[in-house]
This record gives sequence, structure tokens and C-alpha cells, in this order.
Amino acid sequence: MDPQTLSRYAKLIVEVGANVQPSQIVWIVAEPRAAPLVRLVAAEAYERGAKFVDPWYFDPFVKRIRLERAPEDTIDFVPSWFGRRLLALGEGHGVRISITPQVPPGLLGGIDPAIAGRDQLPAMKENFDVINARTTNWTVVPWAVPEWARLVHPGLDDETAMAKLWEQLVYTLRLDEPNPAAAWRERLGQLHEAGTRLSERNFDAVRFQGPGTDLTVGLLPTSRFGSDTPGMQTVDGVIHAPNLPTEEVTTTPDPMRADGVVTATKPLDVAGSVVRDLQVTFEDGRAVDVQGENADALRSRIAKDEGGSRLGELALVDREGRIEKTGTIFFNTLLDENAASHLALGNAYATHVGDADRDRINKSAVHVDFMIGSDDVTVTGITKDGTEVPVLVGGSWQL
Amino acid sequence: MDPQTLSRYAKLIVEVGANVQPSQIVWIVAEPRAAPLVRLVAAEAYERGAKFVDPWYFDPFVKRIRLERAPEDTIDFVPSWFGRRLLALGEGHGVRISITPQVPPGLLGGIDPAIAGRDQLPAMKENFDVINARTTNWTVVPWAVPEWARLVHPGLDDETAMAKLWEQLVYTLRLDEPNPAAAWRERLGQLHEAGTRLSERNFDAVRFQGPGTDLTVGLLPTSRFGSDTPGMQTVDGVIHAPNLPTEEVTTTPDPMRADGVVTATKPLDVAGSVVRDLQVTFEDGRAVDVQGENADALRSRIAKDEGGSRLGELALVDREGRIEKTGTIFFNTLLDENAASHLALGNAYATHVGDADRDRINKSAVHVDFMIGSDDVTVTGITKDGTEVPVLVGGSWQL
Repeated sequence: MDPQTLSRYAKLIVEVGANVQPSQIVWIVAEPRAAPLVRLVAAEAYERGAKFVDPWYFDPFVKRIRLERAPEDTIDFVPSWFGRRLLALGEGHGVRISITPQVPPGLLGGIDPAIAGRDQLPAMKENFDVINARTTNWTVVPWAVPEWARLVHPGLDDETAMAKLWEQLVYTLRLDEPNPAAAWRERLGQLHEAGTRLSERNFDAVRFQGPGTDLTVGLLPTSRFGSDTPGMQTVDGVIHAPNLPTEEVTTTPDPMRADGVVTATKPLDVAGSVVRDLQVTFEDGRAVDVQGENADALRSRIAKDEGGSRLGELALVDREGRIEKTGTIFFNTLLDENAASHLALGNAYATHVGDADRDRINKSAVHVDFMIGSDDVTVTGITKDGTEVPVLVGGSWQL
Repeated sequence: MDPQTLSRYAKLIVEVGANVQPSQIVWIVAEPRAAPLVRLVAAEAYERGAKFVDPWYFDPFVKRIRLERAPEDTIDFVPSWFGRRLLALGEGHGVRISITPQVPPGLLGGIDPAIAGRDQLPAMKENFDVINARTTNWTVVPWAVPEWARLVHPGLDDETAMAKLWEQLVYTLRLDEPNPAAAWRERLGQLHEAGTRLSERNFDAVRFQGPGTDLTVGLLPTSRFGSDTPGMQTVDGVIHAPNLPTEEVTTTPDPMRADGVVTATKPLDVAGSVVRDLQVTFEDGRAVDVQGENADALRSRIAKDEGGSRLGELALVDREGRIEKTGTIFFNTLLDENAASHLALGNAYATHVGDADRDRINKSAVHVDFMIGSDDVTVTGITKDGTEVPVLVGGSWQL
């Protein structure tokens, strides 16, 4: 990324993504190689009056060394200060900026996926507490590293693969627009409107039908699509964009109601292991069968607790987004989940249900997104009285 | 540093420097560019059965950005989790490995030294609590970066300067020895013996005399030189080498007794500002006058609290060490303080006095070493009855 685009990127992250406010503490989680972006983000944050910027450079190579050499019975261990820091940041109503991937996909290749799945760092179970408390304005954004570029563009040499990945990131991040912030405010507005239309229908369930897929997912009485604002809003009224890029309209399903089979339409990365040809069978809301290459990584991760096998997120993605248009699989949830409709096993976001249903949403220490949408997958809304309403056909909104 | 020497270095750090024990948590503080060493240290630590290795990459460029852009009234602020993490590590009897400089000397050039002196990060006041509790086995070791090499070898291009600095580090770290660990165990033994001989004399004070220097520093009744072991010992009996390289025999003075004038024999780096031609005048133990280029950086740092202007350390260095032999000023306390006898303003190490005097030692949130020894500076011990005993003449032990 050229210096000028990089500066525009940092500005977009601070202004639209995290929307840093004066006197806030800004926590940045990033790979050490993302330091050039971290420094520009720090500069922009201080310009906006941030009180302190605390970069946490998470080293994925040390993580790999741990998985290779540490005694197996220590792999679940996380020092107490990891979670405490995050909770303290939340208590102080700080900012969280996550530059991903912190563990480049493929970097843990050759490690037993069942072991790798047990070490979730730098993700922590406290993430969800802080997200659901809506005390922090936060955003997740991408940064290219060679291991990732190699996986996304395997035929190319490192330099060309990196250049191509960067070009795609600039495009999907709308950094090629004359005013990226304005472009994002417009797109966030469109997604907000689509969510509002969906919420008005009060669907009882959503059905996905396509090749290898016939799954019906129940919703809660107060489940709503998207947010009350274009972007998410903190308890202090700060509107932020949790993902950049983002193209999804998301809701929180009923964790007790999901039945059928669903086939992932894209590979997914679970802590550095790439899971391909994933197929999950649900009965009464529970994932009772998980198949596919490296499925062990997913199985061991969702076995962490009871909620790991139930759904915590349902998101719809239309064809207007830029990620699908690249025709590329990024092996990165941030990008791939915004290319296609998807589900997530594990913890739910309380922000998409009313108070009445807050205790019914799924709770777990994990949250794993997997892509199930494509132009071949039809999405239908089902109302309480059984009426079927087309929602997405061929990737286009029907309402 | 070639890969083989780098591996020997990592092994030396883990075995002799920190002496990592099974099931310990290992905390590593380092500049992001020291990642190659951090990773090898992590691998060695896990090989020795460490439970978890937590690298904290402190970004000095973000520190500089803060000092340039953050509101001035926030510069003293440190998030609560910085100190809490360190205290938690101490409570768990962990390992601390510090790879310096984390803020390369000169990197803060152009920043008002009075402002720079107020931001001590990554150093924290809790460091002293943890050191004095002797709960952690710890070590401080060097790593070369271009800004530092440029300052040490100003006539050379970056690549040559880095190569020369690395060569000097390899030499002073005794990594050119067939068995660096054995070489260090021998040298640590010699320093221990010199300390034992000095302690046996029960000096009441130490006098330094040389060009621009005539200073008498009082000792406490139980002040002793060096440790009970070759290296320091934790409460768990783990012997470690707090500095590599180390060439000093150190003691804790009486903070209420220091009188005269002392002229620094080497420049010193205070949080990225280089202080030259330093001259400090003491009255009744207090630094009442501080002069020299960039002296503001030191003045504002020691103004932090009452103990900042009083002495917390007195260390003697003989001519046998390798650092002085390089004939180089490193603008780095770890190396320079081991090239020459020195004093430190600020917090004292409780490990060099008996229980009876533990409450009398200096307490402060700062600790700034400055070099006062050279072959031209004579060191004399003064006993309770006024007898003067030559200690170091021309850099050689007299007892």
C-alpha cells in the first residue's frame, strides 16, 4: 500500500471504523508486521484527542512455537492479565481496534488442528462480555502479510501475490474512492435500510436452500436485523463500524431451533488451520455432525462448551458488496463472511435482540463464522403463520 | 548476528540470564524488531518447560508519536493494566526478560526532554516492587537496531554501523567463547568474590576522586557489595544474572549521606534523550544542582518524587570487563554502566542491605544510572574510624 493510501486507511479506521472520541484509551491488536499501520492509526487517534494508545503486537510465530513445544496440558492456559486488561478497557469505555489476521491463515500448517483449536489467542472469552456490554467502540480491519497472500494467490511469487492482495484490500475497503469515509457512510446506510425492512416482517425463521443445503433456523420473537443505526452504537451513543469492510445484515437466532443440513460455500480458517468442504448437520439447534477437511480444528473449538455447538449469528449478504466481486476466497473471516450469507457457531451478540430475549441468546467462549451463501442459495423468511417470503434470490433482495 | 550465534544467545539468556524453570510464565519486553530473538528465546523457554511465553513488543515509534501529539496533561498517564500485569507476574513467580533498548537512544531526538522525561514507559514504578520482592528471576540483555548503531558509530553507513555494533555485542556478551554459559559462570564467580572482600571491610563511606569529581557517599551499616551468590537469587532459590553483560559489583548507599561534586565520565541516555557533560552536586544526600547538555531530561525525571534526587545504587567496575575494552560509548545504560563505576539516582535495591536497614534505603518511582568511573578516578573506602583504604586505583582492585 502506498504511503498516501495507507494514511487514508488509518484515517478511515479512526474516524469511521472505531470513531475514536477525545480522552479515550485506544487498544490496538495487531501482528508485529502491521506496525506501519498501527503507527499511523496511533497518530490519527492522538490527533482526535485520544488519552493513550496501547498497541498489543501479538506474535503468531511465538504462538506456533508454543503449539509445537509447550506441554500439551498447558495449551488452554491464558495468563490472568489478558482478560483483565480487556475488561479494564471496557470499564473505562475505551476503543478496540483489531488488525487481522493476527494469526495468518496457513501459518499453523502441520500443527494438529485439535491442539491448535484449543489455543484461541489472541481471541479471549472476555471479548464477548465487552462487546455485549457495548462499552467500547470497536472495529476489525485487514492487513496483508506474505503467508496470507500466498494462500489467497497460490500461483504467484510472494511480491506479486502481496501486490494483488493489497489491490483487492484497497478495492474492498473502498480506499480507491475519492472520499472513503463518505462511501462507507453511504453503504452503511444501505445495509441499515435493508435490515429495517427485514425486521419489519417479524420472521419466525429463515430457511436456506441450495446445493447440499436445506436448513431452517429459528429466530427469537425480538430478533432484529442490523442495528438501530448505520453501524453499531455504544452505551455512550458513539456509532462505529465493527467491520471494515462490511457488507452484512446480521441478526441473532434462537439457539434451540435449527434443523437440517448446511454446506459451507467457502473454506474457513480456524486459528490458522484451513477447513474445507465443511458440512454441518443440526438437530434441535445443535450441531450434531461436523464433516470436512481439518474438521477436527472446528470440532475441538466448538467442543469448548455447550454453546459452541449452537448458533449465535445469522447474517445475510447481498450481491452489491465488493468482496464477492473480487471472485476470491480470502481464507479470512472478516472478508469471506462479508462475501456471502453466513452463520456462526457459539456466542451471540445481544445487540440484535430486545431485552425480553436477552437471556435466551446463545452463550459460549467461542464464535466461529462459516459461509453458507451463494447465488445458488435461496433465502426465505417464514412468518409465525407459516407464510414463506422470498428474501434473497440469486443474491438479490426480494423485499 | 548469524543464526548460530543468535541461537547461542537465546540459550544463554534462558539458561544463565533468566534461568527459566519448569511451569514458569515468561514475560519478554522487547522492541518489535527484536522479534527474531524473542522467538528463539520463546522456543528455548518452552524447551525448558515454561508454561506460557508472553512477549510484550513495546513500539518506541508509537511512544514518539504520543510525545509529539498527545495533550501534554496526559503524558504521565499509564493504563491500570500495565502495572497490574507486572504485579500478577510477580505474584505467580514468573520470569522477566527485557531486551533493550526498547526506546533506542536518539529516537526521541527533537522532543522536549522535560516532556520525554515524564513518560517512562515501558519502565513502570511496579518494576521496583517486583525486583525487591525477589519473586521473579529476570535478566536484561541487548539487541542492536539501526538508530542505536548510528549513534554509537556515527561515521559509518547503517549496515557497517550495525555490523560493528553486533560484533561488539557478541564480544561483550562472550558469545565468541566456546561455551558462553561457562564463561559467564566464571566471570560471575569473580565478581562475587570481589564483592565478598569489599563487604568484609564494613566501609562507612566510599569516596570518588578524579577530574571534576570529589564525592563521598555514605553507606548503611548493613550495606554489602554484590550478592550472596554469583548472580541474584529469588525467594525460591533460583539464581539468575540480572544483566548480561554484567561487570559490576554493586551496593545500596545511605540516601541521606552524599556530599560533593561528581562529573559523569560517559554520556547517558534518558528515555531517548542523550545527556552529555553531566555534573551533579550533592548536599546531605540530595542532588541540589544538575548541569549538562539535555540536563532537563534528567531533572524532570528525578523531580518525579523526593527519592528521585537521592542515591539508590553505588557500583564499582574493574578493568577486567569487556565493555571498557571496546573503547566505545554505547549510550545504553546496560552496557555503559558495566564499563565504569556508577551511581544511580532514585530507587534502591533492597537486596544489598540487611533487614535492619531495609526501611532506610531510597524509595522512588525512578532509577537513573550515570557513569562516574574511569582509570583517572580513584575509589577509596572509609571505615567508621576514618581509616582510608584504597579500593580501585587505575581501574584495578587494591584489595
